[in-house]
Parts: sequence; C-alpha cells; structure tokens
Amino acid sequence: MCQEIPGEQLRALYISESFSKNPACRGIAEKASSVETVSDEVFRTFSDTQTPQGILALVRQQHYSLQQVTAAEDGEQPLLMILERLQDPGNLGTILRAGEGAGVTGILMDSATADIYSPKVIRSTMGSVLRMPFFYAEDLCGTLKILKKQGISLYAAHLDGTNSYDRETYLGASGFLIGNEGNGLSEEAAALADRLVRIPMKGKVESLNAAVAASVLMFEAARQRRNTGFT
Amino acid sequence: MCQEIPGEQLRALYISESFSKNPACRGIAEKASSVETVSDEVFRTFSDTQTPQGILALVRQQHYSLQQVTAAEDGEQPLLMILERLQDPGNLGTILRAGEGAGVTGILMDSATADIYSPKVIRSTMGSVLRMPFFYAEDLCGTLKILKKQGISLYAAHLDGTNSYDRETYLGASGFLIGNEGNGLSEEAAALADRLVRIPMKGKVESLNAAVAASVLMFEAARQRRNTGFT
Repeated sequence: MCQEIPGEQLRALYISESFSKNPACRGIAEKASSVETVSDEVFRTFSDTQTPQGILALVRQQHYSLQQVTAAEDGEQPLLMILERLQDPGNLGTILRAGEGAGVTGILMDSATADIYSPKVIRSTMGSVLRMPFFYAEDLCGTLKILKKQGISLYAAHLDGTNSYDRETYLGASGFLIGNEGNGLSEEAAALADRLVRIPMKGKVESLNAAVAASVLMFEAARQRRNTGFT
Repeated sequence: MCQEIPGEQLRALYISESFSKNPACRGIAEKASSVETVSDEVFRTFSDTQTPQGILALVRQQHYSLQQVTAAEDGEQPLLMILERLQDPGNLGTILRAGEGAGVTGILMDSATADIYSPKVIRSTMGSVLRMPFFYAEDLCGTLKILKKQGISLYAAHLDGTNSYDRETYLGASGFLIGNEGNGLSEEAAALADRLVRIPMKGKVESLNAAVAASVLMFEAARQRRNTGFT
C-alpha cells in the first residue's frame, strides 16, 4: 500500500532496521523527501499492530468537495455510494475497495459514519482510500436533496423494497443508499430515495452484511453499464 | 441468534442475572432442557467478548456428508461455494450468511480454511451456521474430481480469468472456487476448474475482498436463476 502513495501526498517515511534491508523498501523510499530508519524496538512502539510490517508513512489527508465526489469521468454517468451511520471500519474500507473496482465515482457519508482515516478503514481499503473521492455531509438529507436536483436517481437498499435490485437500471446518474448495520437507513433518508430496492433473499436470512449488500448493488450497476447495447 | 437455534441442537443455556430479566429471554429459555442463571460477574468469565450479551448456548455441532452439501432442493440445481485456504473468520462467516441468502446449497472447504465453529465465524454468520450444510475435505482436489464426475461445473474466480463472470451461465449444477485472501487459488485447484472467470475491475484495484468476490458471484448466479425465462 505504501508503494501506491502518490509522491506529492507522501510527507515522511519511517522504516524499521529489518525492513530497510528488504528490496521492496528501496522503490518506496525514493519517493519520500524525508526517510528515517529506526531500530525494530522503537518501530514497534510507533505501530498499532502486533506484528508491524516495518514501514510507516506520514501521508497528507485529502479533502474533496461535493462536486468532486459526483464528477464522473468524461462520457460516464456518476455512480455514488451514500452511507448513513455505517459503524464498522472494516465495512467502510471494504466498500471503498469494492467501489473503486466497480467504478464508483465517489462516496458520500454522514458525520455518524466511521472515520475514513481510522487505521482499520485504511488497511481494509488496500489503497483505494488514496484514490476514491469522499465527502462527509453535515446534513446528509439536505445533501441528498441537492443531488436529486442535479438529476441523480437515488436507490435505497431497504427491507421494505418492492422492486428487486436487478429490475432497475442504473445507466443514468445513480446513487445507492446504505444504512447502519443494525438499524438500516433512517426514515428521513429512505423517504428521499426515488426507489426502495431489495436484494431477494432465500433461506432465513433477513439482511446481508452492509459491505456485501453495497457490493452486490455496485457490481450490478457495473454489469449493466458494461453490457449496455451488447445484451 | 440464540432464538434461531433448533430445539434439538440446543443442549444447555447459561444466562446472566441481568439478561434473565429481559423479555427476549423467555422464548429462548423455553426451548432448552437445561437453563442455568449465573451472576453477571461469573458470566463475564464465560464469555470471550468484552461486553457479553448475557446469554451463552451450548449447541451440538453439525456434521454433514459431501452428499448433503451437494443436495439441492427439489427442482433446483446445486450451487456450491468451494473455499481453499480461506483464512479470515469474518470472511468465512460473511460467505455463509450471504450464501444462504443467495440460495447456495452447501459450502465445501479444505482443511486449511478457518474453523467454521470459531467464535468470530459463528458471530458473523448471524445464524446461517445453524442452517448451511458444510464439509471439510481432507483432499480438496480429489473431492473436486468427484464433483466434476457428478456433472457440477466449476468456476474459479481468478485474476487470469478470460471471461467476465457475468458472461457465463450458472443455471446448471455449479460450484464457485474462491482461494486464499493473499495468494488466491492453488494451481492444482485452479486447473480443475472448467472455467476461470474474472470480475472486471476499474481503477487500480487488483482484487476484491474474498467475501465480496464470493458474494458478487453467488448473487449473479441467484439473479440468473431467478430471471430464467423472463429476461
């Protein structure tokens, strides 16, 4: 992951003595203006993991505007993931990683969602945190109204959804709403969705893990967008 | 989750004094032949979580045959998840939960995959561990050969896959192969697959979280099976 940090965001590198002998170390160290090698013992006191890999990067945090989060590449329609009160850092990180893979334009979150810069989130993004635009809205519902005025259709994953998620088309500007792991979306946010969609479920399963539900929706949108005109 | 334990599998219940006053407690306790209430202090020494919910169930472990894992319901074709050296308990539990929702027939694993009865797996299944048939194969590749002889087509999620996963049909008897989080499938297992499929990825994402990749595949199979004849 340190290899993927853009040079202009990389402020400093701290490397353990053991890791400094690793050939993988050289390419990374060349990008940093400040590199410090410390003893393995000192390094362990830096890290919050039990078995640190021996490299710690000080990276400039990114700040994006709402406009950057919704700006699709030329010729493409925006595809947003909108997260409300998502608590689990692993879920948030996994959604960023899967979202980049599925071609998501950006992630919009409310302020009760986990901190994207917490160590667990960063690790589970596998580098996507460096590339995926994101925005914490102080007033999520107000921001959703702005998105709707911009012509973005909002689809909420909801247990009350009448339409199966694969019966909608996501070829236009679209956003998926995913709520809290235990309680789902707030009524206010769900009411702003253009459609409540459900993922049909067999067995006695009531709901899916939030990152799984988000991924099923994002990759269905990716599938439709990839196959337009060919199916 | 304790509410979902079938009565015949439930051996004993241990309940904390605080939880015994919870109305949710009554319905569960009625199913158990042995119920013991202990002080909150004693209960904390039983549990491996920091804030135990106050209920601990002793449940009979299930053992399934390979035949049970591949036995689809009447009129349906088997859909298997096959896991090789999957290490992360959260991933395994999430795959069980999503698999039940997607209509998976059973889970086949090699002996290097995480223990399905470890506490983290059980918790992340949200109850699916009680219902999903599973089988640990001592010789996974030998077992895959048996499945192929039974007419089950094997699709391996693989970075070298030539076909996009949504260009295959999973209407017949099918199995998805998912490998280790860091290293993917062994060459031996991948060589036994009828097809190597890939999930097309945008951005700089090299691979998906194993539970996400498994879920995207399982829900594509579910989507195809649900929509057969209607698309």
